[in-house]
Amino acid sequence: MPAAVDIFDTTLRDGSQQEGLSLSVDDKLRVAEQLDHLGVAYIEGGWPGANPKDEEFFARAPGELKLETATLVAFGSTRRAGVEAKDDEVMRQLLKAGTEVVCLVAKASEVHVLDALRTSLDEALAMAYDSVAYLRSHGLRVFFDAEHFFDGYRANRDFSLKVLAEAERAGAETLVLCDTNGGTLPHEAERIVAEVARSFDCQTGVHFHNDSGCAVANSIAAVRAGATHVQGCVNGYGERTGNADLSAAIPNLALKLDVRTIPPERLERLTAVSHHIAELVNVAPNPQQPYVGSAAFAHKAGLHTSAIARRRDAYEHVPPDAVGNGTRFVVSELSGRSTLAFKAEELGLELGAEALGQVLDELKDLEHRGYHFEVADGSLELLLRRAAGWKHSFFEAESYRVISDHNARAVTEATVKVWVGDERLLSTAEGNGPVNALDSALRQAIGSRYPELTGIHLTDYRVRVLNSDRGTGAVTRVLIDSTDGERTWTTIGVSENIIDASWKALSDSIVYGLLHARMASRSTSGATLPARPERGAAPPGAERAPAAEAPIPNGIPEGAPDGNPNG
Amino acid sequence: MPAAVDIFDTTLRDGSQQEGLSLSVDDKLRVAEQLDHLGVAYIEGGWPGANPKDEEFFARAPGELKLETATLVAFGSTRRAGVEAKDDEVMRQLLKAGTEVVCLVAKASEVHVLDALRTSLDEALAMAYDSVAYLRSHGLRVFFDAEHFFDGYRANRDFSLKVLAEAERAGAETLVLCDTNGGTLPHEAERIVAEVARSFDCQTGVHFHNDSGCAVANSIAAVRAGATHVQGCVNGYGERTGNADLSAAIPNLALKLDVRTIPPERLERLTAVSHHIAELVNVAPNPQQPYVGSAAFAHKAGLHTSAIARRRDAYEHVPPDAVGNGTRFVVSELSGRSTLAFKAEELGLELGAEALGQVLDELKDLEHRGYHFEVADGSLELLLRRAAGWKHSFFEAESYRVISDHNARAVTEATVKVWVGDERLLSTAEGNGPVNALDSALRQAIGSRYPELTGIHLTDYRVRVLNSDRGTGAVTRVLIDSTDGERTWTTIGVSENIIDASWKALSDSIVYGLLHARMASRSTSGATLPARPERGAAPPGAERAPAAEAPIPNGIPEGAPDGNPNG
Repeated sequence: MPAAVDIFDTTLRDGSQQEGLSLSVDDKLRVAEQLDHLGVAYIEGGWPGANPKDEEFFARAPGELKLETATLVAFGSTRRAGVEAKDDEVMRQLLKAGTEVVCLVAKASEVHVLDALRTSLDEALAMAYDSVAYLRSHGLRVFFDAEHFFDGYRANRDFSLKVLAEAERAGAETLVLCDTNGGTLPHEAERIVAEVARSFDCQTGVHFHNDSGCAVANSIAAVRAGATHVQGCVNGYGERTGNADLSAAIPNLALKLDVRTIPPERLERLTAVSHHIAELVNVAPNPQQPYVGSAAFAHKAGLHTSAIARRRDAYEHVPPDAVGNGTRFVVSELSGRSTLAFKAEELGLELGAEALGQVLDELKDLEHRGYHFEVADGSLELLLRRAAGWKHSFFEAESYRVISDHNARAVTEATVKVWVGDERLLSTAEGNGPVNALDSALRQAIGSRYPELTGIHLTDYRVRVLNSDRGTGAVTRVLIDSTDGERTWTTIGVSENIIDASWKALSDSIVYGLLHARMASRSTSGATLPARPERGAAPPGAERAPAAEAPIPNGIPEGAPDGNPNG
Repeated sequence: MPAAVDIFDTTLRDGSQQEGLSLSVDDKLRVAEQLDHLGVAYIEGGWPGANPKDEEFFARAPGELKLETATLVAFGSTRRAGVEAKDDEVMRQLLKAGTEVVCLVAKASEVHVLDALRTSLDEALAMAYDSVAYLRSHGLRVFFDAEHFFDGYRANRDFSLKVLAEAERAGAETLVLCDTNGGTLPHEAERIVAEVARSFDCQTGVHFHNDSGCAVANSIAAVRAGATHVQGCVNGYGERTGNADLSAAIPNLALKLDVRTIPPERLERLTAVSHHIAELVNVAPNPQQPYVGSAAFAHKAGLHTSAIARRRDAYEHVPPDAVGNGTRFVVSELSGRSTLAFKAEELGLELGAEALGQVLDELKDLEHRGYHFEVADGSLELLLRRAAGWKHSFFEAESYRVISDHNARAVTEATVKVWVGDERLLSTAEGNGPVNALDSALRQAIGSRYPELTGIHLTDYRVRVLNSDRGTGAVTRVLIDSTDGERTWTTIGVSENIIDASWKALSDSIVYGLLHARMASRSTSGATLPARPERGAAPPGAERAPAAEAPIPNGIPEGAPDGNPNG
């Protein structure tokens, strides 16, 4: 087993082939920054000349990217059949890209040479040799991507190995064995990689796709067989079923096989980088993703929750902090009392057995109606606080109305009528949509009473239709993410009417934000100042006292939650 | 390598621990039907007595489930410490469940016995022996789930093997080695399973979780080492990162290792069953899922698309029909002309080089503004038809308006003003939300002109906010799924205003439905009848001729799409 491997990320090239994934040049630059922050050895930036975006990326990278750990790599194919390398457009573009390293792809499978390239095996060997030699003669380091290697090896082992031999003879630094169709299983990967690693002096690399669901396992098997260069994508992006997920391959190698991958002290950046990249590429993160998923260390069953309360490592294969993730307890009807008690304890709430039973019943009833507190921490907290006797009195809605008129010009306006204490406030605002208009009208109505609102923003808005066989007649669930610049929270609203559901999530969001602004201002060195908004200037009236007091329960109960004797 | 393995699905028990997954008893019965239709050997139905749902499931199953291939299994834990088996509540519930087979879980790890059970190792061994023996004495077949076996084996091999020995001695039929924390890697799985398979006469089974991203690979490795019973979930549901995904494990074993799993002729049901179960458990299917995902055989890159047009198996690790999936070509700015030409050809449209260039430009522009045609086949088809010279004249919108008033009672109404030919139609309808109201008002306005509308229904409505850092001020993308009872289609609308975006997707949906109803009625044996609605009675006026004609291009171009020379 090697002591260290080079991690090669291809999110910007192969990863961006994923259905639904489209990156601007700015996105690509920001993804590259994240990968460098994580500490991968190589970042494949794209295929210069294949499209204007990739060309622009390589033009801007030297000026705009300050890479500390990673080396940028340009990707391209070998010269075309029957064309001299020096006259080949791809070769020209690869030189123009100006990277120190090039990843050069060549067909390493007889059938693909004959049927896809439609040239002879000898010409394919010459294309490999010539292209590597040409790039080497211009001083470039060459990684040689042997496309379809595993399938080719199984069909005509001799030819596939000859392709590698030509690349090595021409000066390639690394022979990367690609499982382009993703059909290889780990025991085959291990056997074939071992033979290549034994037979060549070059570094052996691997590039797996996940079509058999084994891309991570194949990468591990390959390293055990002698590969020291592992290609893949953070989050496993890629065409079809994706590339090998580096977010799993890296910690498997580092934490379980003691193989050096990224700088060890940066492993704890893994979860944050994974989520940040998911945001940049605008693909919803998979909560079930190994190591970095939001559910990767989330415990739901009552049995596990009570056991884990006694011994944290009992149900976790690695310490979640090692990869920057954390243990999380999930509340749902299945989890029962102990999880709910645990959650209340986290919030510092004192809930007796009776209150706990009542809130469990309420939770079950709401979840039955389409609520889903697992994903709405903000609304769950408000529910638990209410169960502990708290009632917010920030504002009370009398009515609200939305009018959206789409004529020559579209105009959407919302009117809200609310009470703050015994004062009735009425406000109308326009917005670019009903939620935006409602949000603006509500803030306009109560903003002068709650200056801290200027520091609270909605950041995302998600809608899901439940019982979807009834189409637009079904129940709508709205989730709103909000932030005060420091913390983020999610609130939920469910209704047959999307506007009603949005209003519920919106009110919860604002109540949660106001509550925590109060709590924060109370905890600052005994001062009784109103909370200072994170962003933006305080509106007129910022110094006025709030109209209503919201008492905040803070007691911390003693004792462990109850557990299942077979936990 | 064994010739056959028993497939054991635990979606209804371990799978339902997944965050966000909640099943009613009806759901559970329908999932079980699907699993039986697929042909798994065993279906774990739940833990009788652990919650009222599971109790009801086992009570209703004998009368309501007609299983052909599968045997139903009840799950439970061994007797509690210090309690006789005959007096133990779990034992009582297991007998009451009335299944022929029971899956009995016991701790097979020293640390879990001492720290979680808080009893002695000897008592843990006795609990395993007594519980198996008790259930055997009542004539039940017992599968013995050795919880935390792999971790336990690594820490105290002797104790973990002793637990298995007690279970075997008491008459267990199968020793199931559980990787409860999911941290095991394939080479360890293979080594440990091989030792157990060698040392015991019982059947060896395995149960892997996916915390290292290797659950499928571990299952394969275990079978290669002699396991003949594989537990997991169709679609890999489960707590944290999920259980082993049987949708990948089954075809890997059947198609690649020639191991019999489900009845071979049923393998082609895999994709349909996977999607059906995803719908029943109300978890959005993962498009990237190996074998059964909608993207598993989707080709996006222009390079691949042109190559695959020449030789279908060049980029597919197995024939997609073997698992009931299919090859799909995806249209996006990256895929270029050849994919678009291919798609047009599928639709029977004749698009010249110039028209193709124009539609590619339009597509890029729209995708830049947030459209996403990969997921909206209906809107894409309309775009391509327009590029081929078609223009629909079913109706033209003058304006529309939504008023949603939330007072003591919530009322949402929509008014649409549309032209059909030179007739101006105005209609107002109420709905339980803005989209429902708009849909009703539009149908009411034009319904008498288009009786086939009664057969067209919206089935799902999805909303995503793009550039979400701007919250409700961002661009909203609405997707609407529709059906006419035979085909389904997805349409898209993008706008800053969710109501505007919904209207766009809604109009496209109706135009697509009307167009295909016309096409279908034309192709029925020369008749000129109006399309017959699939459901519901035709409204008054059904026999009237449509006000506007929609010419449908039908030419099929010759020749293959252009390709990349390095394809």
